[in-house]
Amino acid sequence: MPPAVLLGIFIVRIVKKFGGTSVADIDRIRNVAEKVKRAVDEGHEVAVVVSAMSGVTNQLVEYCDDTSPIYDAREYDVVVSAGEQITAGLTAMMLQSMGVTARSWLGWQIPIETSAVHGAARIEEIKTKELLKRMAKGEVPVVPGFQGVVPGTKRITTLGRGGSDTSAVALAAALKADQCDIYTDVTGVYTCDPRIVTKARKLDKITYEEMLEMASLGAKVLQTRSVALAMKEHVRTQVLSSFEDVPGTLVVDEEEIVEQEVVSGIAYSKDDAKVTVSGIADRPGISAAIFGPLADAAINVDMIVQNVSREGLTDMTFTVPRGEINRSLKVIEGQKASIDYKSLSSDPNVVKISVIGVGMRSHAGVASRMFRTLAEKGINIQVISTSEIKVSVLIASEYTELALRALHTAYGLDAA
Amino acid sequence: MPPAVLLGIFIVRIVKKFGGTSVADIDRIRNVAEKVKRAVDEGHEVAVVVSAMSGVTNQLVEYCDDTSPIYDAREYDVVVSAGEQITAGLTAMMLQSMGVTARSWLGWQIPIETSAVHGAARIEEIKTKELLKRMAKGEVPVVPGFQGVVPGTKRITTLGRGGSDTSAVALAAALKADQCDIYTDVTGVYTCDPRIVTKARKLDKITYEEMLEMASLGAKVLQTRSVALAMKEHVRTQVLSSFEDVPGTLVVDEEEIVEQEVVSGIAYSKDDAKVTVSGIADRPGISAAIFGPLADAAINVDMIVQNVSREGLTDMTFTVPRGEINRSLKVIEGQKASIDYKSLSSDPNVVKISVIGVGMRSHAGVASRMFRTLAEKGINIQVISTSEIKVSVLIASEYTELALRALHTAYGLDAA
Repeated sequence: MPPAVLLGIFIVRIVKKFGGTSVADIDRIRNVAEKVKRAVDEGHEVAVVVSAMSGVTNQLVEYCDDTSPIYDAREYDVVVSAGEQITAGLTAMMLQSMGVTARSWLGWQIPIETSAVHGAARIEEIKTKELLKRMAKGEVPVVPGFQGVVPGTKRITTLGRGGSDTSAVALAAALKADQCDIYTDVTGVYTCDPRIVTKARKLDKITYEEMLEMASLGAKVLQTRSVALAMKEHVRTQVLSSFEDVPGTLVVDEEEIVEQEVVSGIAYSKDDAKVTVSGIADRPGISAAIFGPLADAAINVDMIVQNVSREGLTDMTFTVPRGEINRSLKVIEGQKASIDYKSLSSDPNVVKISVIGVGMRSHAGVASRMFRTLAEKGINIQVISTSEIKVSVLIASEYTELALRALHTAYGLDAA
Repeated sequence: MPPAVLLGIFIVRIVKKFGGTSVADIDRIRNVAEKVKRAVDEGHEVAVVVSAMSGVTNQLVEYCDDTSPIYDAREYDVVVSAGEQITAGLTAMMLQSMGVTARSWLGWQIPIETSAVHGAARIEEIKTKELLKRMAKGEVPVVPGFQGVVPGTKRITTLGRGGSDTSAVALAAALKADQCDIYTDVTGVYTCDPRIVTKARKLDKITYEEMLEMASLGAKVLQTRSVALAMKEHVRTQVLSSFEDVPGTLVVDEEEIVEQEVVSGIAYSKDDAKVTVSGIADRPGISAAIFGPLADAAINVDMIVQNVSREGLTDMTFTVPRGEINRSLKVIEGQKASIDYKSLSSDPNVVKISVIGVGMRSHAGVASRMFRTLAEKGINIQVISTSEIKVSVLIASEYTELALRALHTAYGLDAA
């Protein structure tokens, strides 16, 4: 029984995207072509998006770095886009050798029109008329990910690192594809990092909103931009393995998930550091005095908590990217006159743990269960922040594994 | 004093082409950019043509070979053209880092329009209006060699191995450049192979016709096609070293060479094998009976000699490419009935030695000096062929070095 029927709908048009490890050498490209051929043989219309062979993009970026410390992003795009070009040609060749009609379509040939922001371009339009005509006849277009072209200047652009996921989702949207399969080196999206929580389960389905939270919190399965685009364009996206032949995780609209768990997964991020400004006057404008200069310095502040005021004085605690900690402290110190704080401290040894689930919109008690579970393990919560579908806490990083396992059990996520 | 003045004319527009060893790594690309910058600083308009970094094209061809034994040449072109694309971007970047205004122009961007014979395309037209406008403002276009585009299909083509020389000469012709400098890993064209004849001299100038004979005879300095194009389009072409800062050899029209030597150089080729068909009837049509079937089998016969007939019987001796010797013998054997020969033999241990010079048109005795010199050394001549500017002999390959040195001295070519 073909997977299309297993999924409960008959898929006619699919975009399949293969990442760098999936096309790392000629044998793996053969494996990719076999997967594509199978889908074609099942009667589907298939378009393929490929990354550069793993290691190639890094090599090309290194060449650019070695050439000039401040290079022209337009030339950078010429150099690094060559990686995906090579894979696209080889993959088309491999498909042909298996009897599948295929050809490569470079970004400028389709064209995939983008903004002129070289090195971090945004896809604006993909002309699909010719591709659709050929796909209807059984031809497989093989498209290099990560690249496009500026319509006015005809110069090659790239979308920024990891942009091939975005290429795939954008192509699926433009082709009005029924599904976008993102092949990678993991079998799907898990309730938690399986390297830490051995009872973590692979999710069959997850909503775009949840995936977006997971992605931005460091579950590096799908690039954040590509999830946001999938959500906006309602592209059913499947994350699955190139190496194991099992169904992956479907990222879909909320309506498609019949029995929604309250909590879908638990994510963590060690990318942040904590800064505390103590003994400041609790007066109007004090927040602006602190966060204004940080924003001016392009430092991205994430979680913020202000203590209850005591005798007119208060403390402000917030997180900044770990790599920006020294710069953040310098910015605050530079505002000593206007902020008038007693002391300034920082702590890089923190972890942000987030419980994520669209179900918490309609279920009370999600946050309190989190706090109670952590308290029972003797874990102190330093900062809390919440959104509609997420509760995040900042704790000392030494408790990471303990906290993740306890929460995974507390929310009933453990595998049977 | 700038080289332009040394050469006796003021050069305003130059195409500079750098081969694979000249751009083999980032340091060498820096060296290339320095050479280009110097020419720009001297006031010249410069366009640059680059090959792939040495080894890259071989790697990409290997990928194609590993992917499929009979690949689609259109996809091959997509894959292998990426090598030059990378170098073009890096070279433009390097020039910018030295303060030179530069940008890469891929084959499809200029465009360099070619025939649709993928893998061995022929340049048909290069649109130069935009390039000329920018060059007049001091901008340096960096063009990847070896590649073009089919105007109708918009698909990438390549010109065949070594095609970057042809790209450079074609671009120089299209830009009406005053000179095309081909940078390579030798310092120029020599009177003979300096690895064998230590007294060989570098030639200051050589005519297109002579260069064409040298190139086709295995002096692998310039690709034959590029010399033929330079001759047709009257492109002054200089062969010079990337690594030593000395003048190279100019390939020019005959009129530009004031004191023409009778013999300019001596070339040799070990690419041929000798076939002898003995004891055949000396009747009309016998040549056609032998060489017709060889031509039908796409075997390229070079030198031919027919012995004087004795008692109505004759022998026919000719050369074929060494790799085709077995196939050639099979073709002849297949025609035994119509040719009716007594015996058939072959010898791969032969070398073709050629004395080349446009001066021999007006000087008698060039051939006889060759025969006398070889006779004095006890070397037997097996086959002779001549053209307007060349005398070639086939001898046993064990005499190669002896013959080359003796002839080099006999024609007064030895360095003082």
